Amino acid sequence: MYKRLKEVSKLQRISPKYISIREYTQKISENNYPKRIFSGIQPTGNLHLGNYLGAVQKWIQLQDNGENVIWSIVDMHSITLPHDPKELSNNILKMTATLLACGIDPKKSILFQQSTVDTHAQLCWILGCLTSFTRLARLPQFKEKSETLKSIPLSLYIYPVLQAADILLYKATDVPVGQDQVQHIQLAQELAIKFNKKFGNTFPVPHSLINEDASQRIKSLRDPSKKMSKSDQTSKSRLDILDKPEILIEKVKKAVTDFTSKVTYEPEKRPGVSNLVTIHSMLTGKSPDQICSEVEGLDTGKYKLVLADVIVEKLTPIREEFSRLIKEPAYLQEVLRNGTERATEIASDSWCEVRNKIGFENDIFHVNKSIRNII
Amino acid sequence: MYKRLKEVSKLQRISPKYISIREYTQKISENNYPKRIFSGIQPTGNLHLGNYLGAVQKWIQLQDNGENVIWSIVDMHSITLPHDPKELSNNILKMTATLLACGIDPKKSILFQQSTVDTHAQLCWILGCLTSFTRLARLPQFKEKSETLKSIPLSLYIYPVLQAADILLYKATDVPVGQDQVQHIQLAQELAIKFNKKFGNTFPVPHSLINEDASQRIKSLRDPSKKMSKSDQTSKSRLDILDKPEILIEKVKKAVTDFTSKVTYEPEKRPGVSNLVTIHSMLTGKSPDQICSEVEGLDTGKYKLVLADVIVEKLTPIREEFSRLIKEPAYLQEVLRNGTERATEIASDSWCEVRNKIGFENDIFHVNKSIRNII
Repeated sequence: MYKRLKEVSKLQRISPKYISIREYTQKISENNYPKRIFSGIQPTGNLHLGNYLGAVQKWIQLQDNGENVIWSIVDMHSITLPHDPKELSNNILKMTATLLACGIDPKKSILFQQSTVDTHAQLCWILGCLTSFTRLARLPQFKEKSETLKSIPLSLYIYPVLQAADILLYKATDVPVGQDQVQHIQLAQELAIKFNKKFGNTFPVPHSLINEDASQRIKSLRDPSKKMSKSDQTSKSRLDILDKPEILIEKVKKAVTDFTSKVTYEPEKRPGVSNLVTIHSMLTGKSPDQICSEVEGLDTGKYKLVLADVIVEKLTPIREEFSRLIKEPAYLQEVLRNGTERATEIASDSWCEVRNKIGFENDIFHVNKSIRNII
Repeated sequence: MYKRLKEVSKLQRISPKYISIREYTQKISENNYPKRIFSGIQPTGNLHLGNYLGAVQKWIQLQDNGENVIWSIVDMHSITLPHDPKELSNNILKMTATLLACGIDPKKSILFQQSTVDTHAQLCWILGCLTSFTRLARLPQFKEKSETLKSIPLSLYIYPVLQAADILLYKATDVPVGQDQVQHIQLAQELAIKFNKKFGNTFPVPHSLINEDASQRIKSLRDPSKKMSKSDQTSKSRLDILDKPEILIEKVKKAVTDFTSKVTYEPEKRPGVSNLVTIHSMLTGKSPDQICSEVEGLDTGKYKLVLADVIVEKLTPIREEFSRLIKEPAYLQEVLRNGTERATEIASDSWCEVRNKIGFENDIFHVNKSIRNII
C-alpha cells in the first residue's frame, strides 16, 4: 500500500507555462472543482512494456488510491491516419480486455469508448471556434507526424482540439500524460481559460500529471539509444505485455548489452544493461542500486535470466486474464456499455451547461428591442 | 400551381466538376438513393429580401411541390466568428418564427436546429479524417472571410467539412445553394465519393441546386453595383422582410436610380431601376418586360410607389404572422423539438451505418491470428 502511495506521490504537477495561467488555475481550479483524472489510450495493436509502465500501471495506482478516474479508449483519435475498419473494431475489444487484465476495475474506474459519447465531437467544434488557426501549427507532433505524409489529413492538424474536448467535457483537473503530450495539455488549459473568460466559469484548468516518464525511459531492446516503440519494425525490440513466456525470455536474452559482464546502472555509459535494470526497478519498485547489489556476482547473461523471470511472473497473470476475457466479448461489450452510460451522464451535464452558455438553448426568450420594433 | 412548378424547373443541377464524379454520381446516386433536399440557414439577424427571394421562397416552392425536404437552422456555423450568446439564443427562435411566417410548414418540412442533433459534429470529425489539410485552403470563402481578421478561428477553416457532414448525414441528394456555395458542395461530393470508395457505398453524391441566383441579382438600394447584404452598414440599403410598411415605402422611395425617368429593364446600363424591376418580377412571377410595359407612362418616382405597394402586400402577411408566432415561444420550441426528433431519426440511421463501416462498432468479434497467438 505504502509503495503505491509513494509511487503516486512521485507524480508531478507540471505548472502551466505562464504565470497568468498558474494564478488563474489556482483561483479557479483548485478551489472550485473536485479532483477528477482523465486519460485516453488509442485502440491500436498491443500494449508494450513501455506503455504499460509509463501509463497503464500508473492509471491502476491512481484508481486503487481511490481517485475519481475516467479512462477512454479513444477510437476517434485512432482514425486520423488511414486504418482498417475490421482491425479497429477488433482492437477496441482487445484494448478493453487488456486494460481489464492489467487491473482496470470497472467498479472503480469509468472505462469507455470515446465515439460512443457524442458530445466529444460537439465540444471539439465549440473549442475549434476558440482556437486560433495558426496556434495548432506550433505543436510539435503535427510537424513530426505530417513530415512523411504526401497528403495530410485535416484531423491530424485538429486532433489536439478533440483532445482538449475529451478532457474538458469531464471537467478533468488532472491528466496523466507522457512528456510528449504536455504541449497538448497546455492547449487544453488555454482553451479552458478562453472559454471561461468569454462565457463564464465552466471548466477547471487541467494539469498534466507526469511521472519521471517511464515510457521515455524504457528503451528498445535492440538499440538502447531509442525508445521502446510499437512502430519499431522489429518486434524483438519490445516486450509486448501479451507475449508468451518463451517469447519474453527469448527477447530478454537477445537484448543488446555491451562487453562488460558486471551488472551496473549507468544509463549514459551503459544504456543496454541499464535499460534492463530500469525495467526491473519499475516492475518491482526496488531502486536500481538495490537491484545491482542484489545481483552482484551475476554476469549480464545470467542477470537476463533473473530479469526474464521477473517479467514472466509479472506478465503471466495479465496474459492469462486477457485470454479468459477475450473469449467473452459479450462481457467486454457490457463493460463498455456501462462505461458509456456513466461517462454520458457526466458529459451530458457539461454539454448542457456549454449549450446554455454559448446561446444554443432558447429556454428564456427575450422580447428585445429589435423584436419590439417589429411586433 | 403551374407557376410554382415552372419556377422549380428553373433550378439547375450543377454538374460535378470532373467526369469521373459525374459518372460516379449517375451510377451511385440517382439509381439508389431517394431524392432528399437539405439546406441550412444561419440564425443571424433578420432576413432581407435577397435572402428571401434567393433561398427561402425556393425552399417553400420545393416543400409545396411535395419534395422530401429538411431545413436546418445552423447554429454551429453561426459561432465561427465571435458572437453574443443572448443574441444567438434569441435569433434561433426569431429565425424559426420567420421561416414559419414565410411559409415553411412543419408538417411538410423537417425544420430543426443543427446543434440539437449530435451526429453532425461526429460525422464532421470522420470526414475531417478524409479531408486533405491543404484542400480547404483553396476554398475562396476562407480567403475572403479571414482576410480582415487578426486571429483566424480554426472553425472558419474547417466549416465546409461540417457543411458536408450536414448534407451527407441526411443522405441528401440535392442542396439548394447560392453560387457562392457551389465549391463547398463540390467538397461534399468529393468526401461522399471518398467515403464510399474506402468504406463501401453509404452516401449519395449531393448536387447543388441553384436557380439564376436571385440573391446575387438583388442589389443594394443605395448602391446597385453591390449585392443586397446584411453586412452593409446602412440599413437603408436593404429591405428586411420584417420591416414595417412605412419603412419599406421609405426605403423604396429613397432607392438610388438615375436621371432617366422612364422605367426600363437594362441591368448593365441602368442597374438602379433594373434592380427594382427584378424585385418586382421575383415577387410577382411576371417577367421584367411585362412589368415595364404595364407601368409604361409612369416615371421612376411613381413606379417606386407601385413597387412599394407590391412589396408591402407581399411582406405584410409575413410580418403579421411573425408577430403572432414570436409571442408564442413555447410553440416555436415545440416545432424545433419535433424537428429535432424527426431529423435525429434519419441522422441516427446514417450514423450507425457510418460507425459500423469505419470499425467503431464491435458487435462481431473476430478471434483473428494476432489474438490466437496470445490465447
